Amino acid sequence: MATDARPQPYRWPDGYRSAACFTCDVDAESPYLWEMRDAMPAMLGQLEMRRFGPRQGLGRLLDLLDRHGVKGSFFVPGVVAEMHEWILPELAARGHETGLHGYFHEIVAQSSDAEFGDALDRSLELFERQTGQRPAGFRSPAWEMTPGMLERLRGRGLVYDSSLMGFDHPYEIDGLVELPVQWLLDDAIHFKFQGGGRDRWPPAPPEGVLDGWLEEWRMLHEWGEMFMLTVHPWISGRGQRIAMLDRLLSRLKAAGDVWFARCDEIAAHHLQSANRGRAAVRADIPAAIGPRRPGGS
Amino acid sequence: MATDARPQPYRWPDGYRSAACFTCDVDAESPYLWEMRDAMPAMLGQLEMRRFGPRQGLGRLLDLLDRHGVKGSFFVPGVVAEMHEWILPELAARGHETGLHGYFHEIVAQSSDAEFGDALDRSLELFERQTGQRPAGFRSPAWEMTPGMLERLRGRGLVYDSSLMGFDHPYEIDGLVELPVQWLLDDAIHFKFQGGGRDRWPPAPPEGVLDGWLEEWRMLHEWGEMFMLTVHPWISGRGQRIAMLDRLLSRLKAAGDVWFARCDEIAAHHLQSANRGRAAVRADIPAAIGPRRPGGS
Amino acid sequence: MATDARPQPYRWPDGYRSAACFTCDVDAESPYLWEMRDAMPAMLGQLEMRRFGPRQGLGRLLDLLDRHGVKGSFFVPGVVAEMHEWILPELAARGHETGLHGYFHEIVAQSSDAEFGDALDRSLELFERQTGQRPAGFRSPAWEMTPGMLERLRGRGLVYDSSLMGFDHPYEIDGLVELPVQWLLDDAIHFKFQGGGRDRWPPAPPEGVLDGWLEEWRMLHEWGEMFMLTVHPWISGRGQRIAMLDRLLSRLKAAGDVWFARCDEIAAHHLQSANRGRAAVRADIPAAIGPRRPGGS
Amino acid sequence: MATDARPQPYRWPDGYRSAACFTCDVDAESPYLWEMRDAMPAMLGQLEMRRFGPRQGLGRLLDLLDRHGVKGSFFVPGVVAEMHEWILPELAARGHETGLHGYFHEIVAQSSDAEFGDALDRSLELFERQTGQRPAGFRSPAWEMTPGMLERLRGRGLVYDSSLMGFDHPYEIDGLVELPVQWLLDDAIHFKFQGGGRDRWPPAPPEGVLDGWLEEWRMLHEWGEMFMLTVHPWISGRGQRIAMLDRLLSRLKAAGDVWFARCDEIAAHHLQSANRGRAAVRADIPAAIGPRRPGGS
Repeated sequence: MATDARPQPYRWPDGYRSAACFTCDVDAESPYLWEMRDAMPAMLGQLEMRRFGPRQGLGRLLDLLDRHGVKGSFFVPGVVAEMHEWILPELAARGHETGLHGYFHEIVAQSSDAEFGDALDRSLELFERQTGQRPAGFRSPAWEMTPGMLERLRGRGLVYDSSLMGFDHPYEIDGLVELPVQWLLDDAIHFKFQGGGRDRWPPAPPEGVLDGWLEEWRMLHEWGEMFMLTVHPWISGRGQRIAMLDRLLSRLKAAGDVWFARCDEIAAHHLQSANRGRAAVRADIPAAIGPRRPGGS
Repeated sequence: MATDARPQPYRWPDGYRSAACFTCDVDAESPYLWEMRDAMPAMLGQLEMRRFGPRQGLGRLLDLLDRHGVKGSFFVPGVVAEMHEWILPELAARGHETGLHGYFHEIVAQSSDAEFGDALDRSLELFERQTGQRPAGFRSPAWEMTPGMLERLRGRGLVYDSSLMGFDHPYEIDGLVELPVQWLLDDAIHFKFQGGGRDRWPPAPPEGVLDGWLEEWRMLHEWGEMFMLTVHPWISGRGQRIAMLDRLLSRLKAAGDVWFARCDEIAAHHLQSANRGRAAVRADIPAAIGPRRPGGS
Repeated sequence: MATDARPQPYRWPDGYRSAACFTCDVDAESPYLWEMRDAMPAMLGQLEMRRFGPRQGLGRLLDLLDRHGVKGSFFVPGVVAEMHEWILPELAARGHETGLHGYFHEIVAQSSDAEFGDALDRSLELFERQTGQRPAGFRSPAWEMTPGMLERLRGRGLVYDSSLMGFDHPYEIDGLVELPVQWLLDDAIHFKFQGGGRDRWPPAPPEGVLDGWLEEWRMLHEWGEMFMLTVHPWISGRGQRIAMLDRLLSRLKAAGDVWFARCDEIAAHHLQSANRGRAAVRADIPAAIGPRRPGGS
Repeated sequence: MATDARPQPYRWPDGYRSAACFTCDVDAESPYLWEMRDAMPAMLGQLEMRRFGPRQGLGRLLDLLDRHGVKGSFFVPGVVAEMHEWILPELAARGHETGLHGYFHEIVAQSSDAEFGDALDRSLELFERQTGQRPAGFRSPAWEMTPGMLERLRGRGLVYDSSLMGFDHPYEIDGLVELPVQWLLDDAIHFKFQGGGRDRWPPAPPEGVLDGWLEEWRMLHEWGEMFMLTVHPWISGRGQRIAMLDRLLSRLKAAGDVWFARCDEIAAHHLQSANRGRAAVRADIPAAIGPRRPGGS
């Protein structure tokens, strides 16, 4: 079968059947600051709701990971690290990776590649100052990328991006390692609720989502793929979701042959292993079909 | 760990591990009157549906609380107390707290702080006249607040607000006690359905919501936090939700070490206990980021 | 307790604890004809999907009711009776009530009281011609009413309306018997799906909805109220919903003390029993609050 | 009972009680190309997410069908066959039917019958070149049809369409065989999620959907109808859905008397059997009611 995909299964380090990666997008106030970047209303609701993240949610998530002995990757917008100065050092001290997530959680469709480059430089400077380390990777706010953003990440020496959904295992796009996410394994699409007429659906009860995540993991594990989970402290720091994540981690840990790894570790493995180059794609954007479509003008 | 949050667990009265607060926003016709404040259509659907609250829903909720021996806090818009004069006296006679909820269920984003102050004065006069008591607290329609509203509540001598979501336990904001709500524990986001093209999602079956509420309570109880539930008579006065609330209260009562208390009792406890001042925040509104963001104009 | 509601429980005929009413809004193409009343597109999708109702759905529902020995009330828009001439006679022959449902499924907010009167006269003439009987009741498309519509129903000698939600038992509004519906017990809000970008939510799996309906019935039965169910042939004539209705009817039938009755029978009972006058309300529309609200202009 | 529907049950080949048809709309990038036909943004998110279909999802679906010994019908837009040249030959080699699905996944309401004819000719040429066979059938993108499209399909000698929902068994419309779909048995309405503010509801957990599909099948099987399932590789190629489809096929296979057949086989059976002509309808579009409605202008 001549397909778009690699012929061989993905190879994980010795003895591991699949990989699991626990990631956290530490957004706090930043998406709201971005949304209201031109005019900030004198209202407290959204701010207080999101500040629950640094105040209570993040600590609960960190304690949960400690209990399970899991090290994760935390993507932190620059402004969040600036407003809550304890976050990056605390994450580093507990052995977690800190990765980039924009400066003001800039939404790609509302921002230019040049602005992206500026926000990247400013974030890198802040991360190095607060942690003494240069980040290895980036995750895009709202999981969108342009070829120009990939180019700027490479140009700054970053190793990986984690924003696209082209495979269920690490791959390469325009020479950068891509550690793919997927919507199903994001807490926000199931649980985020903002109020004030902003929402299109209510938060899901945790049980159905946990069933879906476990079923997704079961198959990814069987196939030897990567289970990439993403949570947000102001969302999954609430009681019922901490309980749900506790069950999830217990199940995955019990399997025994799951490689729990940080994004930087997975990217490094990819580059040093036989997987390299097997699923390498170009960041191709097709031309608009307008002029060539049958009957089109 | 230097965090945004208090270092110690919240302290409840002797022997109680956590607190549970049953609150009811007695909206009846008021949100519709506010929505149609400039032109009332000659249609009966919304009115009759909401009048089901005072006609049947509220009585069912009161009977339920009596059966479980629970005293709750009922937030009543002034116009509802005016149109249904039996409500405030009946609530007081049954031992429940009556709190403020705007006069016409004014939506914060559509109203000014000055209008808020006027509605507050008018509501206070009405409550004192109907019940002989001055209310201790306020809950904002649609759970939004401004610093100016907090200031006006303090200026009238009110003790607490219950509209924000910054912690899972009582805290202080600009010197006022805040008894936090959260969307997950609101019946309306799960169950409210108005018809006529107004809705973005259908009402949830009760079982999943009850599971979520019980799971949320289980964790809040384990952590010694506060379980703050909010219901509306025209929504939760329907059969399947009364049945669900019955199960919920049975479970919480069976725990034995849950402090069921009214909002005014919890606020008084907060001010008289060692908790005071441990989680005190400012009602800070950040400046719009526009001028300082990288590449921003 | 001086409340808005009647003091006594509702009285049902001898030995029955509660009532159950199976109603069917036989919309078929009519809501689409109304929506496209000014310009009908040359597309077949919506038409064929809705024609599934008269072609297969209605027959399945009728067979289901026959198997359970239940007589229901079917509200049929005039244009549907005109386009599918077998429907009204067949319903009458099987012992079901045929009631009015507008001529072109006119949406109240898009139509005048005068147009309503014209549609009423035209429908009455058609029903009498096709069935030899004058209908006793009316159900509004989309469950909205005006005081003027109530007046016109009374003026034509109709006995009841079934479109409002003010109680869980029969009541009177402006002198007309009202047999209340409620959104929770409507199949359309849970299951209707049209495609083509028209929908705000997907169709629910039947199990959760059945649980909600059974739980709603359990409480209404306990309280001696009325369980008023509404289905649509093009929606509930699909396999999984016929199966669900089968289970629902089996459960209610098994109770033994549920009065299964047609709307006209329930309205007649109301008028001849001690219930009459106990819950009689006016079709009051409050004035817009604009001029009198604090600080309002 | 004189109804719109055929009097006799549908007849299947010897010994089979009902039919099951597994179909796959292989959309990949095509709906996005159509949506962005006039201006393609320089963003990768939607493209990579959809390319997961040809890269991993389609192979998983094909392996699943092989394991269950099921041959299905795959509807492939021309541009997808052009961009992924292995797809049509691979499908044919594995014994599946390849059917038409537009060239650029043209949305009917945004396209003319003439454009449809051009896309049809271009697709037919491409399919014959890539597979050596002329397709027998067509499925409309987004499941919408016009009388003019039916006419053009007949004019090119196609045997069937599979886009409408008028019955639960094969029928004829304007002389073409119609193999009806239905929304409930489409994976996209339950599971499709695109992100970036495009969605109106989140993806469902698989369990409730599987329950609904099995219940739908149970009744269709009992009645001797056709179970027509539709999936998309970029949606149902994800782990939890492959697992769910595996369970579904196991259950249907276990029944023993289900005729698993490709669309072209079912259409051929229809034309050669006693079913022919029993449910034959016209593609009637009623006139707009405007001028004749009571009180209408």
